[in-house]
Amino acid sequence: MDNAELGEEMLQWAKELFPYCRSITGGGTRRTLEYFQNINPEFEFITFKTGETVFDWDIPKEWNINDAYLEHESGKRFAEFGKNNLHVLNYASPIDQVFKLEDLSDNIYTIPEQPGVVPYVTSYYSERWGFCMSHEEKCNLPEGNYRAFIDSTLADGTLNLTHAVLKGASSQEIFFSSNVCHPSMANNELSGPVLLSALMRYVKQQYPEPNFSYRFVLLPETIGSIAYLSRYHQILKSKVYCGFNLSCVGDERAYSQVQSRFGNSLVDKALQAALRGRENVKTYTFLGRGSDETRYCAPGIDLPVCTFSRSKFGEYPEYHTDADNFDVVTAKGLAGSFEVMKNIIDAFEMGEYPKVRVLCEPQLGKRGLYPTVSRRGSTASVEARMDFLSYADGATSIFEISEITDRPLDVIIDEYRILSDAELVESGRSNPA
Amino acid sequence: MDNAELGEEMLQWAKELFPYCRSITGGGTRRTLEYFQNINPEFEFITFKTGETVFDWDIPKEWNINDAYLEHESGKRFAEFGKNNLHVLNYASPIDQVFKLEDLSDNIYTIPEQPGVVPYVTSYYSERWGFCMSHEEKCNLPEGNYRAFIDSTLADGTLNLTHAVLKGASSQEIFFSSNVCHPSMANNELSGPVLLSALMRYVKQQYPEPNFSYRFVLLPETIGSIAYLSRYHQILKSKVYCGFNLSCVGDERAYSQVQSRFGNSLVDKALQAALRGRENVKTYTFLGRGSDETRYCAPGIDLPVCTFSRSKFGEYPEYHTDADNFDVVTAKGLAGSFEVMKNIIDAFEMGEYPKVRVLCEPQLGKRGLYPTVSRRGSTASVEARMDFLSYADGATSIFEISEITDRPLDVIIDEYRILSDAELVESGRSNPA
Amino acid sequence: MDNAELGEEMLQWAKELFPYCRSITGGGTRRTLEYFQNINPEFEFITFKTGETVFDWDIPKEWNINDAYLEHESGKRFAEFGKNNLHVLNYASPIDQVFKLEDLSDNIYTIPEQPGVVPYVTSYYSERWGFCMSHEEKCNLPEGNYRAFIDSTLADGTLNLTHAVLKGASSQEIFFSSNVCHPSMANNELSGPVLLSALMRYVKQQYPEPNFSYRFVLLPETIGSIAYLSRYHQILKSKVYCGFNLSCVGDERAYSQVQSRFGNSLVDKALQAALRGRENVKTYTFLGRGSDETRYCAPGIDLPVCTFSRSKFGEYPEYHTDADNFDVVTAKGLAGSFEVMKNIIDAFEMGEYPKVRVLCEPQLGKRGLYPTVSRRGSTASVEARMDFLSYADGATSIFEISEITDRPLDVIIDEYRILSDAELVESGRSNPA
Repeated sequence: MDNAELGEEMLQWAKELFPYCRSITGGGTRRTLEYFQNINPEFEFITFKTGETVFDWDIPKEWNINDAYLEHESGKRFAEFGKNNLHVLNYASPIDQVFKLEDLSDNIYTIPEQPGVVPYVTSYYSERWGFCMSHEEKCNLPEGNYRAFIDSTLADGTLNLTHAVLKGASSQEIFFSSNVCHPSMANNELSGPVLLSALMRYVKQQYPEPNFSYRFVLLPETIGSIAYLSRYHQILKSKVYCGFNLSCVGDERAYSQVQSRFGNSLVDKALQAALRGRENVKTYTFLGRGSDETRYCAPGIDLPVCTFSRSKFGEYPEYHTDADNFDVVTAKGLAGSFEVMKNIIDAFEMGEYPKVRVLCEPQLGKRGLYPTVSRRGSTASVEARMDFLSYADGATSIFEISEITDRPLDVIIDEYRILSDAELVESGRSNPA
Repeated sequence: MDNAELGEEMLQWAKELFPYCRSITGGGTRRTLEYFQNINPEFEFITFKTGETVFDWDIPKEWNINDAYLEHESGKRFAEFGKNNLHVLNYASPIDQVFKLEDLSDNIYTIPEQPGVVPYVTSYYSERWGFCMSHEEKCNLPEGNYRAFIDSTLADGTLNLTHAVLKGASSQEIFFSSNVCHPSMANNELSGPVLLSALMRYVKQQYPEPNFSYRFVLLPETIGSIAYLSRYHQILKSKVYCGFNLSCVGDERAYSQVQSRFGNSLVDKALQAALRGRENVKTYTFLGRGSDETRYCAPGIDLPVCTFSRSKFGEYPEYHTDADNFDVVTAKGLAGSFEVMKNIIDAFEMGEYPKVRVLCEPQLGKRGLYPTVSRRGSTASVEARMDFLSYADGATSIFEISEITDRPLDVIIDEYRILSDAELVESGRSNPA
Repeated sequence: MDNAELGEEMLQWAKELFPYCRSITGGGTRRTLEYFQNINPEFEFITFKTGETVFDWDIPKEWNINDAYLEHESGKRFAEFGKNNLHVLNYASPIDQVFKLEDLSDNIYTIPEQPGVVPYVTSYYSERWGFCMSHEEKCNLPEGNYRAFIDSTLADGTLNLTHAVLKGASSQEIFFSSNVCHPSMANNELSGPVLLSALMRYVKQQYPEPNFSYRFVLLPETIGSIAYLSRYHQILKSKVYCGFNLSCVGDERAYSQVQSRFGNSLVDKALQAALRGRENVKTYTFLGRGSDETRYCAPGIDLPVCTFSRSKFGEYPEYHTDADNFDVVTAKGLAGSFEVMKNIIDAFEMGEYPKVRVLCEPQLGKRGLYPTVSRRGSTASVEARMDFLSYADGATSIFEISEITDRPLDVIIDEYRILSDAELVESGRSNPA
């Protein structure tokens, strides 16, 4: 499958999942996780019960919803859940009561600055009900009485997430995480899980006996990662070598990185290298955090995790609105994100600390890897190769070689392959532990 | 007492001390030290005798002066000590002799580039006599003979300084030093000693049982700090955790820092944090040194000391002239400097290495410290709080948290207080040793 | 001998050596090495035999040449070796054969972008024959048949280089290397060997019993340094403290540095310091490498070596052409380069880690090293001195003092001498091991 086809396939997955009403708990999220389990059967469910304590938090009730709308006394319905599940405040308590229009104001959420879009609003830890609609629609609601109807349940149940570990020669893990709690929005967040699923399949196909182990996790944001960490953080702390939180990876507008807490770990250099040379690269420090990197990098947890986005959450106009749809997320956007992560996986599998096998400068000419006539400018075509050899000392990662030489990771990987094939370079300190 | 009243009180102290004729030795300096001892009786006198060796230096003779002037043959007097003690070369030897005007030139100091002001000039280590006047006045001196009269003494005596230690739970000390050797100038240097005295009183009032110990030293510049160090440097080396040299802290024009020798110690970050967000902050490396930080940071002494100034010595037009008066130094200026140092003291007393008490992200919502409805932009109001929690790992000082998050120290302190009150944060590695 | 005379002498050496036809092997190179041995008899020859393996390379055949030209059927000769040895492809195989003009094209090297100059082209590791001429001349070659005549030999023989060690109190070595493989070009490369020879003589004359040991090496580029390293790299690794590759050091246009592999060793700071304050200083990272620093800093070799150039190889228009002559290289240019390296040698011999001998601030006034009247601005004349004293802590090299204080190395050295003479500063951690 070429990259364009893969982009189309990821897009198709996202489109099929788009209508599900996800939240931090409930059937929509569970069905979403089952969908991804169909793609990669290695995924196992992990369950937390309502009321269970996870670090400083308690697992909330399970939320399920059948229908919701505001019905005008004329019979005309507004904010219909059946048309768009963003219309209901996510995690809303049930209600069936008649209000005057003027008494509904606090329970209708809009974005006055973006009057044409329906906002995505949640209230997980304080029970309330509400509807979301465009500011225009709210302003044009006819006078009169309205039946506020939300047929939802909040009851003891479970919070679900799935994880899978592909075991490699080393127990050290490359870790990927994404979220399954957002209802009908495409970039934030169906792009992340579909990319993660494609990467997991790639590892299995490309590296059936990988050098590193690989861990993939799909979970609701915040409470899901907190729950997962509460159960697994000792294991993660001992095993995660580099981790990537995937969020908003489906558009074509930028390539973004949110660095780990101090921005100084190998994973930061890895993602930087993979983005080097691409168009519109944006690097955010940890101050730009907001997704689960917040939890993975929290004091005391301190996993080497950074977040990869195209247009970062909070930084694009459609964020957390119904405009975050398939005008934003495209096959090309998803394919571009896959390419970035694929390069990183390939880099780790080749051995991220290449080491030249001969002392001093290798003689490339006799291997056909260097021009035999030397004249001014004759080495321009092999500069990347010579640069690579100059830093392939077994202690400098290929991500750092990319940084030092200011060359994109894929260029570095190409030279690594050529010189490995010529038996001039070996995998150095790869696979620690 | 509010901050404005405190500024007025400090200004009043400076005004009362302004007329004293201070030098590196002598009665004027001794009386100045006694004045400050009245404010903080914990101050103890330390005495060095003339001729005593202190490192590479010898304690010079004690200088006292009664009167001085240049008297024209007409009886008209110029450069009258009685009108302004800057008119006599500080530390001048006695003289009573008649000279022709043209023979006086070498003994009259002016600043041709600033023709309206009287310069402050000293000659401590080479006995000479001289007068200081404005260049305009010198140019207009009438022809004729002049009696040069300086009724001073240079005799065996003492060099005096005072110090005080407020003992805390830890023997580690926060150190403050300022100078008492300058005659009638306000910013350089009455502002420093009055700020130091106000800070000492603040610590006693606010922290009667402090976590850190606090050392306060008032001394003549250069020879005084050298003498003090020659007797106490082993103690200081083992105890001083962070130290501040206070000089020129009374004007309103800038906030300046002279970094310690390599600019990389906690004290540098502490002062940077306390200045962050203020107007017209100037950071000088150690190349901008010139006050006692030179001695405190000298090779082999190496105390973690930096200098705090408003307009730094040498950098403002009135420096070392009679224009350095109460047009320069104001109650508001002194109060602003107090605020800076107070924040640092508060930071140390709260524990400069805060540590979050729960693993992973705390649930702020249930404590009323976070909005319960989540919508785009809803966390803007708690960003400082979340940033603080993300770095309160027990190993990152609040000064570094200020730096990393680019937020003023007082904002960091506010969040620290709120989260401490909620029992979410504890003092981490505070009070080493 | 003053510096200008020395420049003239170096220029004279270069002019005498200019006509020799050097290559990586052969008589021209051997005679060049003998010429330098006459200047410094300590040089010893080191010989490698054709076919000997040196790391990843084999020593190539020895090349010698008597004559070469292209002779038109009219009898007119072109590309005459006798007129300029750049006209023959360096290391060309012998040939004596008649060709039509149109069949010669691949064997005539020109630079179309610089149509007036003869390029320098080599083919060491793939046997071929060829001529070099200006593009203009090639375009104007008359139609007809040409006799291509190259009277050269490629036969088993030797590769030669010379080295010398001047033993000092410490076995740690300051290392200098330059190349003797380039035929008639002045900057690249006769400037390097003549500077190296002058420096070697300087060390012997100025420091007959030096503190450091000094190693000087003259060798063909690439294969010569690889051969030398293959035999001596263990010794070099244990002894070389700082090393300098000298190349293109004879023009007046710039002062350039190519840093060592990571740019973070003492030698990088040493050369930076010696260049500080000069006109048109250019600092290249190791990405700008291309001379033997490539080999000296290669992974696993890792000597602390950087390259000193005026206009760096590859960066000036005359590079690798017959225009690289004595319009480019001047006595003044060579003398300026000598000055740079001389300062570094002097710095090492004085002890590169100066240490102040008194605690706290020395009293300079009583030694006549400080003004005795203190007034605004009075210390400007002694700022460099005070800065030096503030960092002469025995752990900060004078190269770092130059960097921190932003003062040229020779200014630092001057203050070091003055303060050493006053017995205020001693050689600190000089001569490790």
